[in-house]
Amino acid sequence: MTLHIKEQGVYTAGGIVQKAEGVFDPIHGQLADAGQVRYSDHCTVFYQLPENGNGKKAAFLHGYGGSIVTWQRTPYAEGFADMFLEAGYGTYLIDQPRYGSAAKSSKDATVSARPDDLTWFTQFRLGSWPNYAEGTQMPHEEADIDQFFRLMTPSVGEFDAQLVTDTAVKALEKSGPAALITHSQGGIPGWFIAAASENVTGVIALEPGTFIMPEEECPAPYASNSAFAIPGAGIPCIPVPMAVFEQLIKKPIIVYFGDYIPKETVEFPAQDHWRAVLALSHTFADCVNRHGGDAKVVYLPDEGIRGNSHFMFQEKNNREVFEHIHKWMQEKGI
Amino acid sequence: MTLHIKEQGVYTAGGIVQKAEGVFDPIHGQLADAGQVRYSDHCTVFYQLPENGNGKKAAFLHGYGGSIVTWQRTPYAEGFADMFLEAGYGTYLIDQPRYGSAAKSSKDATVSARPDDLTWFTQFRLGSWPNYAEGTQMPHEEADIDQFFRLMTPSVGEFDAQLVTDTAVKALEKSGPAALITHSQGGIPGWFIAAASENVTGVIALEPGTFIMPEEECPAPYASNSAFAIPGAGIPCIPVPMAVFEQLIKKPIIVYFGDYIPKETVEFPAQDHWRAVLALSHTFADCVNRHGGDAKVVYLPDEGIRGNSHFMFQEKNNREVFEHIHKWMQEKGI
Repeated sequence: MTLHIKEQGVYTAGGIVQKAEGVFDPIHGQLADAGQVRYSDHCTVFYQLPENGNGKKAAFLHGYGGSIVTWQRTPYAEGFADMFLEAGYGTYLIDQPRYGSAAKSSKDATVSARPDDLTWFTQFRLGSWPNYAEGTQMPHEEADIDQFFRLMTPSVGEFDAQLVTDTAVKALEKSGPAALITHSQGGIPGWFIAAASENVTGVIALEPGTFIMPEEECPAPYASNSAFAIPGAGIPCIPVPMAVFEQLIKKPIIVYFGDYIPKETVEFPAQDHWRAVLALSHTFADCVNRHGGDAKVVYLPDEGIRGNSHFMFQEKNNREVFEHIHKWMQEKGI
Repeated sequence: MTLHIKEQGVYTAGGIVQKAEGVFDPIHGQLADAGQVRYSDHCTVFYQLPENGNGKKAAFLHGYGGSIVTWQRTPYAEGFADMFLEAGYGTYLIDQPRYGSAAKSSKDATVSARPDDLTWFTQFRLGSWPNYAEGTQMPHEEADIDQFFRLMTPSVGEFDAQLVTDTAVKALEKSGPAALITHSQGGIPGWFIAAASENVTGVIALEPGTFIMPEEECPAPYASNSAFAIPGAGIPCIPVPMAVFEQLIKKPIIVYFGDYIPKETVEFPAQDHWRAVLALSHTFADCVNRHGGDAKVVYLPDEGIRGNSHFMFQEKNNREVFEHIHKWMQEKGI
């Protein structure tokens, strides 16, 4: 494969400017507070535009612990975003505010170095450490695990869905119309971005954290043994005004889940987490379709695609996952 | 310009693995400490390999407040790394450990949001805020300034030159032979990387923070009014064992400085900082050449290239800067 790139680069979008009182004096006060400024709380975008493309674009929003590298080729996986480029899409990889190259926050942040990689290994349904799930598509030699854990990045400051939304909407003003591909936690602002931005042509949500539904129809949290459930409640969806929901459902929506999600409640917290989210996704899709929208849920094993974790786009069969998504995008003309 | 990319991707190199006592239990202890691991303190590399290249490679190491975006196309500047790609080089953009997508540190970190952009605007010789230096090559409409400040990234944890060195040496084991292009603070580990790695074919140091010299020949710090000088001393160079220096000077070295550096001591701290560093660079080059090495210092105005700041590779005439560097690389066969 050779990628023919007409243009590539980075830009930031959105954010604020903090200003300190006083007048800055470069000679006597270079290190002083007076008159200083700080530009922060933006997102950062790495884009690549193909030569002779299909005229369409795709924007990618990572999840917790991710960054733009989530979508790139690694030593253990083909580049998922590269597949879209190859198919003719301009690609826009977004670093959420307070992540990666967009780590310049407006708030002091403490980043803990407490070992917690296995919390995420588990939550991502990679297996029951140190064993990978049977039939896993995730490459799992020691060198692969090393790269998987190292390509995670910490959040530098708290996650702020409104901030992610606002900055991504600005990022899309620059890209123009694009399909929005979200992962995990990024899926939460993803719904709000799609509702707020005329530039979102459709949403491909890969195991989104949760869903938005109109206030009157949003169910109570789904009970779950998840370690991340709200104690005594479960996995919530997010109630929004009908006007917001109506903006979202103007766009076609598809939601993907990997393998290893049980149908019935199980003790294993991570599996039970995704059982509840998958159940919620069907409630969401029904709600979208009842209101005249176009939403679909795909549980990959039902399509004969097995062995995928939460990171289905970084696994051995990620081209198969890409092709499934691409077929849907072509059907929807996005 | 169209870039023909044979392969692109990311990888991490180096780093450590922290392990907590005990046995991890994914069912009853997903959030607990027992048996957890944390992979951290690596560098992260974004690479692009051109189709039909010149068979050579260039690795780029950013400075304080930088990241791989330092070298990429921005809304206000052509992509410096792209010029090398276009000329046939494989490019390797390195995120230092504890920066950008390599922010996963082995130590707790506090990242301050104190406004300090003007400290750096000043230190980088962009001008005397809010005025840009006369004849500046830096695009400086409000939108340009916005992007310049936002494309800075905080250090997530302390700068550790040894760690940067160790991880970059590992990164170069994967790239194979490459010219090492450093900027500013990145220039400090840059000298150690070049000494330690057989894969470094030469060093292009763009306004490096300082220099290494053999213990017996390393001068006392150069007096300076710099806000970053060692109080009562000045700008130091780093003494190293002769054996380290001898490894470094096996490789051709060129050091570049932009404009606005006075010849004599001045009150303006940032200008006086770079006056001392430039003076030190000549002492370093003399030392390298006296020991049989090949070092050269280029003050761009002496070549008729004027108006450049500390960020000469992000300014309007950055192609001219590239061509000067490229000519030298061709002469040296790297």
